[in-house]
Amino acid sequence: MAGTPDDALGWVQRADRETSLLFDVFVLGNRTRTLVVEAMRGAGLRPDEYAAYSVLFEEGPLSLTQLAMRLGLPLTTVADHVRAMTERRHLRRNANPTDGRSTLLSLTAQGLRTHRRASRSFELAHAALREHLRPSEEASAREMLRRITASTERAIAALPARRAG
Amino acid sequence: MAGTPDDALGWVQRADRETSLLFDVFVLGNRTRTLVVEAMRGAGLRPDEYAAYSVLFEEGPLSLTQLAMRLGLPLTTVADHVRAMTERRHLRRNANPTDGRSTLLSLTAQGLRTHRRASRSFELAHAALREHLRPSEEASAREMLRRITASTERAIAALPARRAG
Repeated sequence: MAGTPDDALGWVQRADRETSLLFDVFVLGNRTRTLVVEAMRGAGLRPDEYAAYSVLFEEGPLSLTQLAMRLGLPLTTVADHVRAMTERRHLRRNANPTDGRSTLLSLTAQGLRTHRRASRSFELAHAALREHLRPSEEASAREMLRRITASTERAIAALPARRAG
Repeated sequence: MAGTPDDALGWVQRADRETSLLFDVFVLGNRTRTLVVEAMRGAGLRPDEYAAYSVLFEEGPLSLTQLAMRLGLPLTTVADHVRAMTERRHLRRNANPTDGRSTLLSLTAQGLRTHRRASRSFELAHAALREHLRPSEEASAREMLRRITASTERAIAALPARRAG
């Protein structure tokens, strides 16, 4: 309950009362979502849908599990996306030649067109952000983001033991 | 449509077909959300609610606008949080002595108790993550996250001109 209405530092970072790295990630995620939502108004896909289309476009065909891992989302969430994409006839399923238990997902011609159209809007956001980051800064930012993501992955795995302990 | 089922690189980063920094932020946000959601099962607050309570706890009293800025969320989203918190009797509104048009929000005793209880669960996630990041790494990660957030802010401001141009 620190801070008074006159305290100009009331809503900026304070050395004595630190929020966590997780809070910084939360705020960054919120701001980038705002950027992409603004850029993608009327683009035909929401930002999270666009991410799923992009992964299939860039890296498909993929199994549901691979798609979920690549997006960093729970399987159930990705299954919802896949259902919606299938209903729009944007997704094709083929037998997985290396694993008879799973199918591989890829975009249909219609899905590819939808992705390409949405890409133009997404690129507005991407270009606007890159204008404000030096290329060297972007490279080190991406490396750092992946390091934190890898640490988060290990933290998720360690959580049950920590909760029990 | 690159990648075949046999291509081991199919769902990892590929030098020739890069996703964007925004995608890396999206994945990191998803993984940290999973970490915090797992840690906060049964904690009585969802992670995004917990963030709002935390900001008011650490930095309140705040106006609605200040709270939204600090969380990096649209005003309308934060107004929904505030409505829910008010219904739970977790939020108090007081006149803003420096601005008659706005009120200042702070947690009630009941809101503080709810925040404190949820904190114990959140700290499980925070501690698990810190175990996998060196303190020096955490400091530079936070600095980098804030630099990207600031760049995103400038990109959001530049978007209308870019869209028109």
